[in-house]
Amino acid sequence: MKLNIALLAGDGIGPEVIDQAVKVCDAIATKYKHEISWKPALTGAAAIDAVGEPYPDSTHEVCVNADAVLFGAIGHPRFDNDPSAKVRPEQGLLKMRQKLGLFANVRPTFTFPSLIDKSPLKRERIEGTDLIILRELTGGVYFGERGRKDNGNTAFDTMTYTRAEIQRLAIKGFELAMTRSKRLCCVDKANVLESSRLWRETVQAMEKDYPEVEVSYEFVDAVAMRLVQWPKGYDVIITENLFGDILTDEASVISGSMGLMPSASVGEKTKLYEPIHGSYPQAAGKDIANPLATVLSAAMMFEDFGLQQEADDIRRVVNKSLAEGIVTEDLSEDAKAYKTSEVGDWLAKNV
Amino acid sequence: MKLNIALLAGDGIGPEVIDQAVKVCDAIATKYKHEISWKPALTGAAAIDAVGEPYPDSTHEVCVNADAVLFGAIGHPRFDNDPSAKVRPEQGLLKMRQKLGLFANVRPTFTFPSLIDKSPLKRERIEGTDLIILRELTGGVYFGERGRKDNGNTAFDTMTYTRAEIQRLAIKGFELAMTRSKRLCCVDKANVLESSRLWRETVQAMEKDYPEVEVSYEFVDAVAMRLVQWPKGYDVIITENLFGDILTDEASVISGSMGLMPSASVGEKTKLYEPIHGSYPQAAGKDIANPLATVLSAAMMFEDFGLQQEADDIRRVVNKSLAEGIVTEDLSEDAKAYKTSEVGDWLAKNV
Ligand SMILES: CC(C)[C@H](C(=O)O)[C@@H](O)C(=O)O
Ligand SMILES: CC(C)[C@H](C(=O)O)[C@@H](O)C(=O)O
Repeated sequence: MKLNIALLAGDGIGPEVIDQAVKVCDAIATKYKHEISWKPALTGAAAIDAVGEPYPDSTHEVCVNADAVLFGAIGHPRFDNDPSAKVRPEQGLLKMRQKLGLFANVRPTFTFPSLIDKSPLKRERIEGTDLIILRELTGGVYFGERGRKDNGNTAFDTMTYTRAEIQRLAIKGFELAMTRSKRLCCVDKANVLESSRLWRETVQAMEKDYPEVEVSYEFVDAVAMRLVQWPKGYDVIITENLFGDILTDEASVISGSMGLMPSASVGEKTKLYEPIHGSYPQAAGKDIANPLATVLSAAMMFEDFGLQQEADDIRRVVNKSLAEGIVTEDLSEDAKAYKTSEVGDWLAKNV
Repeated sequence: MKLNIALLAGDGIGPEVIDQAVKVCDAIATKYKHEISWKPALTGAAAIDAVGEPYPDSTHEVCVNADAVLFGAIGHPRFDNDPSAKVRPEQGLLKMRQKLGLFANVRPTFTFPSLIDKSPLKRERIEGTDLIILRELTGGVYFGERGRKDNGNTAFDTMTYTRAEIQRLAIKGFELAMTRSKRLCCVDKANVLESSRLWRETVQAMEKDYPEVEVSYEFVDAVAMRLVQWPKGYDVIITENLFGDILTDEASVISGSMGLMPSASVGEKTKLYEPIHGSYPQAAGKDIANPLATVLSAAMMFEDFGLQQEADDIRRVVNKSLAEGIVTEDLSEDAKAYKTSEVGDWLAKNV
């Protein structure tokens, strides 16, 4: 297969973890005789510094023409602590999601046999966890009107959804549930928010089209609690953008390290793959960040190309590295910690 | 002391848990020669059924004229699954918070020595946790404009804050931090939301007034993760309404049961005390709900009246009941589960 992959390393640890994913993908390509042509492009704070905006048109061009996008991370403390900054890295991420029509973010949460005891949660609570949060990614309070009034003394953001936006995300949720245990949980705050009531009403009306799927409705505060208490209670969760942001980060704790959870963003045409962790600026440039979430995101990419064996190979070698302790410092405890680049080299050599 | 306490039992398990708190308070009053006069008033679905609205003026009168309000829970599934309901129990709760000026919800999270091993989290992660989340309670997306457009096919909610609203909450946070370890964490989503940027800007400008307090700023998604990974990393957290709703429920898991965490809502004049758990309709009327969160909320009430010994007595007897296994089914595991009313009787007898 010939693959054109847009490579958006971004900020912080982005470039380092992306490098390792590239090594692993190249090794897979050699093994299975694929040809991957990488198309690097600027995004985030790096793009602001270079060309003044975080998702330049040239980068969009590269993404649109690629078969998939592999993305690192975005964000820089320089902007976080300056509430008045006019241009911010995150705007690039949001613009990219919107312009590429990536309305569904697929975030699986699972455990690794050799890591279960590293989780802050007890083994019996999490062993066998296998849930997927489908986060709506191009609507809600991320994209509604926002601004200031009263000489800057009042600020507002608008959380808004249309029925069509909810439907297209819910369809993906129902379909995913059909391929799994046929349980779907819609998470909202319908006891307070009008947009949540539209979510609930819309999903309720779709139930009849998927008679085999058992649908439940839960409030986001209760789910924030139950996700930690009993994650095995969930299979497929659908939720709006902000709730999904919070719940997926929370769920990542189950696996024992944020550096492990991959994600895929899908929608209209282009598909994008990214680790769910952020740019982790404190670790940037130190060669200590965990590259596995990015490597596992690449596995999701191969799977979506229909290259199941390639995906399985990546997952197998990741599990092997974990079992053999070829891990970065977030997972090494008292044992030797490997460098980001060493983990990448080891994985590439062993696929 | 003569105390007039408004008693708002509300819905679901509300009346049952409130009954136990009343027993305990009455026992304390006898012991210390106080006179408590209870003023019951309607709220929630119960009030809708009786008089057509969830927070009637008559109830407001009772609250305004009381020295404090003791509150049970609000909410009923009949309304949750009817997105088109015009009157909802929760509106009563929000109206009450607003009309009583309860802009700060104080939610402590701590562990109980005898319960540590019931937590889904590992002992070493949580032992010694002692954090307080100060949740803004009368602003944000709970109170902004909301509605429908396009024949009901678009829904919106507005998350809005003024500088003054943020300041008065932050003052409470800084002051609380001064009485504790002098660490304050402001939780927002300033990389996306304009209202969060106003939060960050406002709190940053206040730092100079509290030079001894060390302030940090974290994103809500990251905190959702870190709260579970390392709760001991936090002392006082301040945050807006919706984030506070989600994070406090999540944090309640640390203690091992949602039935344990009390809260106080304070602000202009009246103070209100309520368990952070909801109306738990599945358990309503069964005499199985855990009354301790409500009993511990009453302890916070005595403390705020300056009656420290009374508060300490309640906490001591609660700890004793836990140590001796006089607990409801959420905590009893294989041992005998006591009824809600039995736990209340035992506590009242032992204060
Ligand atoms: C960086 C930030 C804007 C982003 C989000 O909130 O969507 C991130 O947290 C994520 O989850 O991808
Ligand atoms: C019942 C609901 C409206 C309420 C809230 O969201 O504030 C509850 O969850 C709480 O935390 O007190």
